[in-house]
Amino acid sequence: MRGEIIAIGDELTSGRIINSTSCFAAAKLFAAGCELRILSTIGDDPALIIATLRQALARSGFIIVTGGLGATSDDLTNEAVCRALGRTLVFYPEVLRKIQANSHHLSAQARTALEKLAWLPNGAHALHSEARSTGYFLVDQGKPAFFLPGVPHEMRALLVDAVLPRLAVWENQPPLQIRQRLYRVSGLNEDEINRRLAELEHCDLRVRIGYYPVYPEVQVSLTIRAAAAVTATEADALLDRFDAEIKHLLGRNIYGLAEDSLEEVVGGLCRDRGLSLAVAESCSGGLIAAAITRVPGSSVYFRAAVVAYHNELKESLLKVKSATLATHGAVSAAVAREMAIGARRISGADLALSATGIAGPGGGSSEKPVGTVFIGLSARAKTLAEPCFFTGNRQQIQASTAHRALDLLRRFLLADQD
Amino acid sequence: MRGEIIAIGDELTSGRIINSTSCFAAAKLFAAGCELRILSTIGDDPALIIATLRQALARSGFIIVTGGLGATSDDLTNEAVCRALGRTLVFYPEVLRKIQANSHHLSAQARTALEKLAWLPNGAHALHSEARSTGYFLVDQGKPAFFLPGVPHEMRALLVDAVLPRLAVWENQPPLQIRQRLYRVSGLNEDEINRRLAELEHCDLRVRIGYYPVYPEVQVSLTIRAAAAVTATEADALLDRFDAEIKHLLGRNIYGLAEDSLEEVVGGLCRDRGLSLAVAESCSGGLIAAAITRVPGSSVYFRAAVVAYHNELKESLLKVKSATLATHGAVSAAVAREMAIGARRISGADLALSATGIAGPGGGSSEKPVGTVFIGLSARAKTLAEPCFFTGNRQQIQASTAHRALDLLRRFLLADQD
Repeated sequence: MRGEIIAIGDELTSGRIINSTSCFAAAKLFAAGCELRILSTIGDDPALIIATLRQALARSGFIIVTGGLGATSDDLTNEAVCRALGRTLVFYPEVLRKIQANSHHLSAQARTALEKLAWLPNGAHALHSEARSTGYFLVDQGKPAFFLPGVPHEMRALLVDAVLPRLAVWENQPPLQIRQRLYRVSGLNEDEINRRLAELEHCDLRVRIGYYPVYPEVQVSLTIRAAAAVTATEADALLDRFDAEIKHLLGRNIYGLAEDSLEEVVGGLCRDRGLSLAVAESCSGGLIAAAITRVPGSSVYFRAAVVAYHNELKESLLKVKSATLATHGAVSAAVAREMAIGARRISGADLALSATGIAGPGGGSSEKPVGTVFIGLSARAKTLAEPCFFTGNRQQIQASTAHRALDLLRRFLLADQD
Repeated sequence: MRGEIIAIGDELTSGRIINSTSCFAAAKLFAAGCELRILSTIGDDPALIIATLRQALARSGFIIVTGGLGATSDDLTNEAVCRALGRTLVFYPEVLRKIQANSHHLSAQARTALEKLAWLPNGAHALHSEARSTGYFLVDQGKPAFFLPGVPHEMRALLVDAVLPRLAVWENQPPLQIRQRLYRVSGLNEDEINRRLAELEHCDLRVRIGYYPVYPEVQVSLTIRAAAAVTATEADALLDRFDAEIKHLLGRNIYGLAEDSLEEVVGGLCRDRGLSLAVAESCSGGLIAAAITRVPGSSVYFRAAVVAYHNELKESLLKVKSATLATHGAVSAAVAREMAIGARRISGADLALSATGIAGPGGGSSEKPVGTVFIGLSARAKTLAEPCFFTGNRQQIQASTAHRALDLLRRFLLADQD
């Protein structure tokens, strides 16, 4: 089933906001076996909205339109839909009731303004949503057209809960057999990964391998695209065969699949082993702790973090020795080790990570340029520190530091089980 | 001058990669006074590339095409350009020389593969680039068409260095007068902002006001779009008049403009006043510290942060009294105050922020549901705590907590100067 997405908003065509909703929808639709021909992004221009809607409905099997459904005066989608498809705006009392039920915290005036949201094109069916703003779908020339809010989390929820299930039962012809797996890879660059997997690239026309550096990691995709004549079992077998090859060739550099995050993977290892974790940070400024605690349930293994920017605080809060600071400097393997040991001691954790370095833009020297970072890891039996040299701006160096620290712990815990 | 952007690549239409290049180009073109009608994203499909190129050239004044220029077999743009515009592929020896000069580190085999990059449509002019891949432009029906690589940093460099200067001298008619200001607003929701600014919306057709919730804040845009007959001075005056009105109506809820971030604004206030800052976090898990230290130069005012997840660590690391924890519970205004006082004492900072709450998904109760957060602020003369009730998932509650904490400090420091 071939469709297209139309995202509406001046904030998108003027580049103020990146169009993340179309990307999210494209990924979900692709995974569901739908082919997207075109993703169009257009401004809040009624004539252009009308022309784009008409063209899309004429050439594609379904359309998804996002944005312009809100209550403010620059939201123009519904009127354009009416003019494009020859419909009238109709008042939907049940939509208003639902909106009002979710708006108790607003003033009476604000709730009145929301009434605009209950006027939908004739023939529209409201889509379920817990959120205040709503979406709808209608059928035109036998094709489904979905209209969703542009606010990312509202759009995502409606796409998954209301659009994908309807599309799945819409189609008449059997779909292509589409399978995809996404591998998240750390510790190898794109060229090295490409070289390792090159032998897999041309042995089957139905198989495609893609490489996507997504800073600071690389993502690898394996896509099986087989005609409907291929059975689901055959497609699964093909996927499994190539999946096994990729896992063999990349080994532990694959830290996870698809939606896995490094902090979830590391957290899972700590939880499974019953180990608690602490962090001592300097240049990464809290980013390691923030990554770890982003994971629901991290309070089970995460104990504490100390971010100490100045030497005297590394001494007072993390018990780093002043002699070590004087001899090696704050950016050194010795200080990274003592920071990790200190974090473990003051928190009583089984494991601690530390990072000290120069995130820039200032503070670099010829001996220790911007991007020089030492990452420490302390466990009961062993403490180690790893020198790293990152490139990029301050935020990239901080992100690389947090990523590498978590990856160091992941490899340490996996090596432990060998 | 009205143009459009066409981004080509299956990695974009399948949602594997977000289309950041079109967003970057849109922002730069908008700032340069060009109007973008449509941003299209299409897959590596020759027929679709041809149809889209033809339609875009027929209806727009210029086009920018990104992607599909590489040396691998899925790069199809140049052949499609030839078929769409009735041109032939021609070998450009000077392009090959340039490419080879930038490819010394590659194997002979890899360098041979790059020869494909030197075959361009008849009439193409190569665009300068330090990078291995190159871009080109050509003129069709009197309109400029630019073809750029899809790799973000290469595309960005060519857009700025080679496309914008050519577009600037291309146009025959004088450009529109375009001005834009973007306001970043905290502490008011979209409806409330809309209501406050409603009176400004319809008093001048050349003025547009847009509202964009960008979680957890709201951004407001003021756009002046005047015909070329309006002088630059008049356009500036119009902008200034509406700018003053918006600032009057939103007051201190505007924390910054355009590229300002809340952490930069707060950091600037600390730096200007010579005040140092510490942080004590529980539910936000390091996010407040990470935000503060993201700012270059934050080491001037930032001293330390402690993330303490468990009660005994709030006692040992932050000197929260066990009686306070027992009486009020960890999620309470009293504990938020003591955490902030503790952070200030152990770090010697002038100011400290704290946050304790329930980020979820577990841990909520009927009395203190998920999203209950207390934010504390301690200064030499005064300590306060503010109860907050956030909605959303764990990450949204954490992000809201960090945002609100920084905003509390911003308002505190501004009130101090009254």
